[in-house]
Amino acid sequence: MHRHTIQHCRTCGVTVDHRVPGDGDTRERAVCPACGTVHYVNPLLVVGTVPYLGDQVLLCKRAIEPRHGKWTLPAGFMELGETMAQGAARETAEEAGAEIEMGAFFSAMSIPRVGQVHVFYLARLLHGRFNPGHESLEARLFTESEVPWNDLAFTTVRETLQRFFADRRRGQFGVHDVDIA
Amino acid sequence: MHRHTIQHCRTCGVTVDHRVPGDGDTRERAVCPACGTVHYVNPLLVVGTVPYLGDQVLLCKRAIEPRHGKWTLPAGFMELGETMAQGAARETAEEAGAEIEMGAFFSAMSIPRVGQVHVFYLARLLHGRFNPGHESLEARLFTESEVPWNDLAFTTVRETLQRFFADRRRGQFGVHDVDIA
Repeated sequence: MHRHTIQHCRTCGVTVDHRVPGDGDTRERAVCPACGTVHYVNPLLVVGTVPYLGDQVLLCKRAIEPRHGKWTLPAGFMELGETMAQGAARETAEEAGAEIEMGAFFSAMSIPRVGQVHVFYLARLLHGRFNPGHESLEARLFTESEVPWNDLAFTTVRETLQRFFADRRRGQFGVHDVDIA
Repeated sequence: MHRHTIQHCRTCGVTVDHRVPGDGDTRERAVCPACGTVHYVNPLLVVGTVPYLGDQVLLCKRAIEPRHGKWTLPAGFMELGETMAQGAARETAEEAGAEIEMGAFFSAMSIPRVGQVHVFYLARLLHGRFNPGHESLEARLFTESEVPWNDLAFTTVRETLQRFFADRRRGQFGVHDVDIA
């Protein structure tokens, strides 16, 4: 799991125990021996879009780790106070500076190995001018055959793009719930 | 937000600052002045099922807070190391002791007010015998007109049940992405 181990209680700062807290719970948690706070760690939601213009999709070349220099759909960790669609739109603005009309819920991918769920929405690009933020080296459009399939940053990006182009050929967009081993 | 404020660093126990950490981030986070750890707090995923048998759905009467005594679909916080569907199946076993065949992804509901996303899967009940766990007072089947609409525990349960019965009447189940104000 890409998650830092909890060593101290967030409430009182005391060194925590790692044990099953009881009360019906069956999993080991960080439990504070002083104030009793149980520290739950749960999967994170990553939200993004498949921005398209005609038969092209927008990809961003990552300027940050992990996967510096690899291509990705605009996506990032969902924040408190926003809906999934709002988070996906925010990430699209931040990473690509793209202007979009948000479309349908498209893919939801569980990745238990890293404790994440990635969700992508379709998004129609209003035009082909982009203004990538500091997290992207470049943002540009690709047809299916132009997509750098061997230089994509994440499995969920490849799986989502494959389904996007397949659905587009079929003339109908579905919703795809996929588990990534 | 139903989230405890972070007062101490999980890595070293020092009292944290609450400030924008810089490096392109624009949100206030708990930042450790000693070791530099940035403590992100993100929305939580709740996963559950709509267990059905013919024209009936299974609801559980909550034996725990919040909403003790109110009726809910089986659902709970997704855990590390599982897929959304695995988490939904686990909660259905834990809260209702129901035997199911997992079905399609059905609803995904953002609730920005509490920093949660609730996801429900359809689940066909193999039979009508249940064995509710310690989190449920009772588990039983309801037709649409029997559902205790005014005694449901959560808005997302009501919204999901309404869409389930509407889709069932229509003869086709969709996927519902809904924002709860």
